[in-house]
Amino acid sequence: MASGQRDPAEFDASRLIVTLVKELQPVPPADEANFGQNMTDHMVFASYDPVEGWSAPEIKPYGPLTLYPASSCFQYATSAFEGMKAYIGPDGDPRLFRPAKNMTRFLRSASRLSLPLFDPDELLKVMKTLLKVERRWIPDQRGHSLYMRPMIVGTRHTIGIVASDRALLWVMCAPIGQYPSIGARPLSLLAVGDAVRAWPGGTGEYKISGNYGPTIGPMQVAHRQGYDQCLWLLGDKVTEAGVMNIFVVLKRDDDSVDLLTPALDGTILPGITRESVLELAAAHPSRTTLPGLSASLHIYPDERDITMGELQTWLAEECLLEVFVVGTAVVVQPVGRIGYKGGDLTLPAPEGGLGPVGKALHQRITDIQYGVFEWDGWSVRCS
Amino acid sequence: MASGQRDPAEFDASRLIVTLVKELQPVPPADEANFGQNMTDHMVFASYDPVEGWSAPEIKPYGPLTLYPASSCFQYATSAFEGMKAYIGPDGDPRLFRPAKNMTRFLRSASRLSLPLFDPDELLKVMKTLLKVERRWIPDQRGHSLYMRPMIVGTRHTIGIVASDRALLWVMCAPIGQYPSIGARPLSLLAVGDAVRAWPGGTGEYKISGNYGPTIGPMQVAHRQGYDQCLWLLGDKVTEAGVMNIFVVLKRDDDSVDLLTPALDGTILPGITRESVLELAAAHPSRTTLPGLSASLHIYPDERDITMGELQTWLAEECLLEVFVVGTAVVVQPVGRIGYKGGDLTLPAPEGGLGPVGKALHQRITDIQYGVFEWDGWSVRCS
Repeated sequence: MASGQRDPAEFDASRLIVTLVKELQPVPPADEANFGQNMTDHMVFASYDPVEGWSAPEIKPYGPLTLYPASSCFQYATSAFEGMKAYIGPDGDPRLFRPAKNMTRFLRSASRLSLPLFDPDELLKVMKTLLKVERRWIPDQRGHSLYMRPMIVGTRHTIGIVASDRALLWVMCAPIGQYPSIGARPLSLLAVGDAVRAWPGGTGEYKISGNYGPTIGPMQVAHRQGYDQCLWLLGDKVTEAGVMNIFVVLKRDDDSVDLLTPALDGTILPGITRESVLELAAAHPSRTTLPGLSASLHIYPDERDITMGELQTWLAEECLLEVFVVGTAVVVQPVGRIGYKGGDLTLPAPEGGLGPVGKALHQRITDIQYGVFEWDGWSVRCS
Repeated sequence: MASGQRDPAEFDASRLIVTLVKELQPVPPADEANFGQNMTDHMVFASYDPVEGWSAPEIKPYGPLTLYPASSCFQYATSAFEGMKAYIGPDGDPRLFRPAKNMTRFLRSASRLSLPLFDPDELLKVMKTLLKVERRWIPDQRGHSLYMRPMIVGTRHTIGIVASDRALLWVMCAPIGQYPSIGARPLSLLAVGDAVRAWPGGTGEYKISGNYGPTIGPMQVAHRQGYDQCLWLLGDKVTEAGVMNIFVVLKRDDDSVDLLTPALDGTILPGITRESVLELAAAHPSRTTLPGLSASLHIYPDERDITMGELQTWLAEECLLEVFVVGTAVVVQPVGRIGYKGGDLTLPAPEGGLGPVGKALHQRITDIQYGVFEWDGWSVRCS
């Protein structure tokens, strides 16, 4: 490198510039917040160019962006994102749930699209500062939270299909109301085999924007047929439901249970709630007793293929105890019905909601998220 | 509908508003134009919202767009596009090649992403006007052209994954230099089986942005290994090469030839050059004699699976005459080498370039494009 030239700058939280809005918006009551339609006052923003590298990250008023029409993200969908939630703990401080896992996945998604990379720890530092700035937007009520959406998009302007050496990165926030939770109506899913969400060698395991647009049409079809979400099939294999991972609880002969979820074969998003469910199930009862479950109940988590044929068989043999979906937005939610080949599989829905295993996992995960149960540092305080 | 309410407006070319730049850019010499890095002075622009419908289309100075960070296109890749080229004919007028086919495909892509729709004929009218405005940017030289990129992107702002009832539509133009043509170096392709471009039930047959971002990484790998482009496999099946359709010419016992290309099974973009190649081959020699080919040569076009194993067998049996790729940018270009399982398949490359069939098709298609051969109204004058 010639003298006088510098390496492109890294993403550096210590360079953060904070510019607050002149007039704060009123925060809607937690119960009135629609999912993700109103953004908060501020956002994190940074840009990358190949000479200067990352700009100093900013916290600044949420507002429109300016991009050239030939930007890579418009033409070739070089964009990736994350979804996280912030909660208020008993100490009044904002908390994030295993945020380092989101940051690692975010970096991996950006890398899959050959976008400029960044230090995920530095980004997380800036996001924690954003949460302190937006503290008044985080509902101080169990079941409510502030949704955070980090994004990176390529902005190189050329018709050529090449790696984008320019990017914008931002984090926006939106308050979200209470999701249907324990006792809420179980979801209905329409099994979809003609539109395939993800395939081996494809990009289903990355949280990249291109995975989502094509799901809107099939979801509209499911809604018109009276279902809440699509259950994405690959051949006869169950993969995901909507944008959630799916779990099945089976009774064993000895009254212990299997907890099955599709294996991470490249078609499954490695969900952080998914991973947490598997880890908590494995910890019961040896390390902890999950709420409402007997310490004599053994749960055997198993990541494996699940086919529609197997679901039908287990249902007929009455060993299918619970089916639930998990994700950042819903945490754990029961499935009551699956439309398949013109008919419906009616699933067990104990007390019209989650079964004992789903209920225990929902309770424990939200206890950890809201900081009322301490577990392996999963709930990270932003203080 | 309550009185006083109107239907949302259609996309209407008669409402066109033209605003010219104050100072025109200098047009680079045709030989110096890089592919797609410099846009011309003007663009077509229109926006859709659910109440007003389509805005009056504009031709206005090319310049940055303003979008909210929560716009659907950033988060969920609700964006689709087209690629077309404009040529100068012997009469000095701009011409487009089968543009109605691009418009139909564009609408189909937008529809797949549940985006607002538009009348493709009306859009084409506005694009023809843009070409007249940008006439000086269309190189008046054989082998040169002006690339046109229509795009539509969703701009509804919500975190929810729902159909975007807001959109921006634009058409930008970039002069492109001469592509390697007859006599130019044949392309080398690296057969890629681990990254899978498209899948049955996926979106490979649509020109949507999400299909392209994930191809950049594998293309970088191919470049590092000394190949020009990826040859996308699905299992052992050949699908596409880079962003082009692929053709194989096989010798029959009676000295006629088969012209094979993968069938449109959902994993293949229905290319307009692909379709034109099939139609022209079928017309030889009954309706026309292709340049340089004997009228006694029969060509049998066949859309079917092609496997790597078959390519190897045909090569060993010496019945493989030509392999070429086709697309808007390259028209017809020979393939000289395919990297596969650590080795290379060295393909016949007559005179170091296109074989007789590829050469005849390249010549005839470009003759039609530049308006020196009239064929079924394929070349559309913008006068």
